Amino acid sequence: MRILAIESSARAASVAVSEDGALVGQYFQASALTHSRTLLKMAEDLLSNLELSMSDVDAVAVARGPGSFTGVRIGVAAAKGLCWGADKPCVGVSTLEAMAWQGEGRGDVVICPAMDARRGQIYNALFRFEGGKLIRLCEDRAVALDNLVTEAKNRGVPYFFVGDGAKLCYNRFLEEGLAAVLPPEPLLLQTAWGVARAARGKTPEPGFDLTPNYLRLSQAERERLAKLQNQ
Amino acid sequence: MRILAIESSARAASVAVSEDGALVGQYFQASALTHSRTLLKMAEDLLSNLELSMSDVDAVAVARGPGSFTGVRIGVAAAKGLCWGADKPCVGVSTLEAMAWQGEGRGDVVICPAMDARRGQIYNALFRFEGGKLIRLCEDRAVALDNLVTEAKNRGVPYFFVGDGAKLCYNRFLEEGLAAVLPPEPLLLQTAWGVARAARGKTPEPGFDLTPNYLRLSQAERERLAKLQNQ
Repeated sequence: MRILAIESSARAASVAVSEDGALVGQYFQASALTHSRTLLKMAEDLLSNLELSMSDVDAVAVARGPGSFTGVRIGVAAAKGLCWGADKPCVGVSTLEAMAWQGEGRGDVVICPAMDARRGQIYNALFRFEGGKLIRLCEDRAVALDNLVTEAKNRGVPYFFVGDGAKLCYNRFLEEGLAAVLPPEPLLLQTAWGVARAARGKTPEPGFDLTPNYLRLSQAERERLAKLQNQ
Repeated sequence: MRILAIESSARAASVAVSEDGALVGQYFQASALTHSRTLLKMAEDLLSNLELSMSDVDAVAVARGPGSFTGVRIGVAAAKGLCWGADKPCVGVSTLEAMAWQGEGRGDVVICPAMDARRGQIYNALFRFEGGKLIRLCEDRAVALDNLVTEAKNRGVPYFFVGDGAKLCYNRFLEEGLAAVLPPEPLLLQTAWGVARAARGKTPEPGFDLTPNYLRLSQAERERLAKLQNQ
């Protein structure tokens, strides 16, 4: 099965092609350019340089959130468009689950994807690898760093961080005397490879059914609700 | 300093752009297509999608070997051509040193890049990280797996393998009861990111002076020498 995977939920954006679980190509950018400008061009270039077209792809996989509202929207919209145009099915995966794959082979650690969610919180979930399988320890959530620290003290296992909130968490863990691992740069930010890996074994569905998962209300929605409550 | 890095010394090929040591973009392919067909197109696409041109690049870095004779030749020729055309300097780095950067942050291990050199040997060198610095433990070499095993028994430290010979070494180490670590797929094969990282801090030189480092004679040269000796 050949998967075209898309990741645009934070500052970096990437696309990847995998075949039966092996990485065939990946195109990654962490520039200041907007994903709406770069993402589809990367997908087009990657397929073209692999001498493939959308008709050779079996499914599109995308990180459907949580993450930057704009980033998630661009990724999901791109995936839906590609699926609709080429009549292909889609696999929407949790951004955090996709990130967790970057902690594969790290031994006895809790994998802790951490995206800066502002307002004193991180988007986060916890995972472990057992016998090569990724085990989810909690649902995707927006959590305060204080709560993450309290949990980790109870667990007593080193945490492996990944994502744009990784350094923040890592520094705080060291301050608290907790064991923590920060990966080198190529593994720090989420990638489309993680999305392809997380999509493996999941059943593709019609792109029409794909929805973003923002985990919490957007600023506009929060402000509207507040206004309504004050009326 | 903005570096355009090139890696084509084995089956995969990749290009990357780094700025002051940070990864800005990377384009990686591990397909059956020849590097002479894909490599320069990847460099062109990556620069273009980053809204950069060769005039924005300060230096070209390239893995100058050891590795596949054809692959090294394509990478070095591409780097020389880009430098000559755009009047830019070049940094040629050891393929093995570039690979070693994929073992960054792995704790107290010997980093062991391993490329299949055929004829019962691997291209290899040994490294360690000390305080974030990469320390070279031996020169680039073509070594028999038996000798690598004997050395490792004397060292008594786990080995971290990277490269297309990594699985071969890893399996043999496990058979011998030696501690060994095999990275997950995104870190298994060499990347242009490693080349950019290894080039950092090295002084760029004129592209004209760049030469490949094959470590041993090509099959044609070996056969010619044997013929001359038999005359």
